[in-house]
Amino acid sequence: MGLWFTERQTKNLAISCRVKKTIYSEETPFQELAVIDTLEFGRMLVLDNVIQTTVKDEFVYHEMIAHVALNTHPGPRRVLVVGGGDGGTVREIVKHPSVERVVLCEIDEKVVAAAKDYLPEISHALEHPKVEIAVTDGIKHVKEKRGTYDVIIIDSTDPVGPAEGLFSAAFYQDVAMALREDGLFVAQTESPFFNKELIKRIFKDVSGIFPVARLFLANVPTYPGGLWTFTMGSKKHDPLTVDQANIKDYGTKYYSPEIHHAAFILPPFIAELLK
Amino acid sequence: MGLWFTERQTKNLAISCRVKKTIYSEETPFQELAVIDTLEFGRMLVLDNVIQTTVKDEFVYHEMIAHVALNTHPGPRRVLVVGGGDGGTVREIVKHPSVERVVLCEIDEKVVAAAKDYLPEISHALEHPKVEIAVTDGIKHVKEKRGTYDVIIIDSTDPVGPAEGLFSAAFYQDVAMALREDGLFVAQTESPFFNKELIKRIFKDVSGIFPVARLFLANVPTYPGGLWTFTMGSKKHDPLTVDQANIKDYGTKYYSPEIHHAAFILPPFIAELLK
Repeated sequence: MGLWFTERQTKNLAISCRVKKTIYSEETPFQELAVIDTLEFGRMLVLDNVIQTTVKDEFVYHEMIAHVALNTHPGPRRVLVVGGGDGGTVREIVKHPSVERVVLCEIDEKVVAAAKDYLPEISHALEHPKVEIAVTDGIKHVKEKRGTYDVIIIDSTDPVGPAEGLFSAAFYQDVAMALREDGLFVAQTESPFFNKELIKRIFKDVSGIFPVARLFLANVPTYPGGLWTFTMGSKKHDPLTVDQANIKDYGTKYYSPEIHHAAFILPPFIAELLK
Repeated sequence: MGLWFTERQTKNLAISCRVKKTIYSEETPFQELAVIDTLEFGRMLVLDNVIQTTVKDEFVYHEMIAHVALNTHPGPRRVLVVGGGDGGTVREIVKHPSVERVVLCEIDEKVVAAAKDYLPEISHALEHPKVEIAVTDGIKHVKEKRGTYDVIIIDSTDPVGPAEGLFSAAFYQDVAMALREDGLFVAQTESPFFNKELIKRIFKDVSGIFPVARLFLANVPTYPGGLWTFTMGSKKHDPLTVDQANIKDYGTKYYSPEIHHAAFILPPFIAELLK
C-alpha cells in the first residue's frame, strides 16, 4: 500500500517514511500521539507529527544523551530524566551500577503507556525497580527540588508546545539549583544546520550559569539533517577530562570510550556558534 | 507556490525540499540533469532525481573528500578527480600549494557546463590554470595510466547507472596501478545506516589491494540519514599518523586539524562492518 508518513522537519524540508500500518493513535491532553510501523525504521513514536524515536535508530540518541553525562560524573547515584517517556534513556541509565534511583518526569502519561504497550525494546526498563515515574511537569518538579540530583537529563521534544519552557535560561537556573554541588545536566539541543540561533542562545545561557559548558554531537538519521547537538552544563566535572580507561563496556552500538571524546570535536562552523 | 522536489533516498524513505523554481533541466546522454533553487538549501544539483550537492551544505562533502586525503600525502603534486563535475572537490584541491596539476575526469560534460552556468560558488575553480577537464569515462582513464598520480579522488554518484563500475574491486586495482609508489585514493562510499553490505565489501576489497585501508565519516544533511562514509586506500601514508601541526588553515567550515582525526573514530556499529 502506498501509505507514507511525512514530517515537515522545517518549513521547507520534509522526511517521508513508507508505513506498513498505524499501530496506535490518540489525541492526549498534551499532544497528538501515534505509534506507526514503518518499513525503513520499524516502529516509530510520533508526537504532533514529529518523529521522536524509531526502533532502528533510537540507540544513537539514547546512548549519547545518557552515557556521556553519566560517565562525566564519577559516581552518579540519583538521576532525573525530564521527558523521555519512551524509556530509551532510562534503559541506558540503569546500566550504570552506581545509579540508585532514576526519576522520570514525563508530563504525558499516555507516552509512557504507549511505549510500554508498543515499543518494548525501547521501554522495558520503565519497569526497572530503580525507576520511579512521576507524571508531572518537569519544570515544576525541578523548581521544587534543591541539591537533589547528581545528573539531570533533559530528553525533550522540540522547543514548541509543552517543551518550550525546557529551553529557557530560567529553567537551566532551576536545574542548577536541583543539582548537587558536583552535579551536571545534559539536554538535547536540536540541529546545528537548522537551529543555529537556538544553539547559540542555549550555550550562552548555560555558560552563564555553569562553570563548565560543552556541546557535543551525534548522528540521528530521523532528525532534521541527521546531525544533532547536546548541551551539557556542569558544576565541577568536565566531560573532556574523563579518563577513557574508566569507561565501562555498556554493550552500546554508538557510544564508546573513543566516541565520548570525539563527540566534542566540532567542525568550525559549529564551534563558531559557541564563541 | 507549493512546489516540492522529492528524492526517494531508499525504497521506503524520501526527502522533500520546497522549490522556488527550476533553473535548468536536461536529458543528457548519461542521465537526467537538473539545477533547482530550493528554499532550504539554495541551488541544488540533481542527477537522475538524486541530490548531488547544494549550495548550503556542499562544503561538508567537498572539504572532507579533498583535505583528508591531500593532507595524508606529504606533498601531493598530481591529483585525479573521477566524477565531481560540479567542481566543488577541485575548488578544495587547488587550495593546496604543492598541487601542480588536477585532472578532472567527468563522463558527462553537461554536468560541468551546468555547474559553470548555475553553481558558480561551487564550480569557480574549474577555470583554475592547474585544472584540466577530461570529458571521458574515469574507468577508462584510470586503466590507461601507470604510476601517474599522488592522490586519486573518486567523487562519484551512487553505485547505480554510470557510476556502478567505480565501486568494483577491478577498478580499485586499476586505481592502485595509476597511483605513484606512495600514492593514495579516497572514495565516497555511501551511508552506514542504509548501505552496510556495500561498505563492508568495499573495505574488504580495498584492504586486499592497499597496505593501508581506512574509513572516515562526515555529516551531509541532504544525503540519506545525514551520515556519510569515505573509504581510503593508501600504499604508504596513514591518515591516522598525520601530524595536526602540519595541517594548514584552508578557510574550511567543516574540516579542521582536529576533525582530520576525529572523522576516523567510528561508532561500534560502523567499526563492526570493517572486521
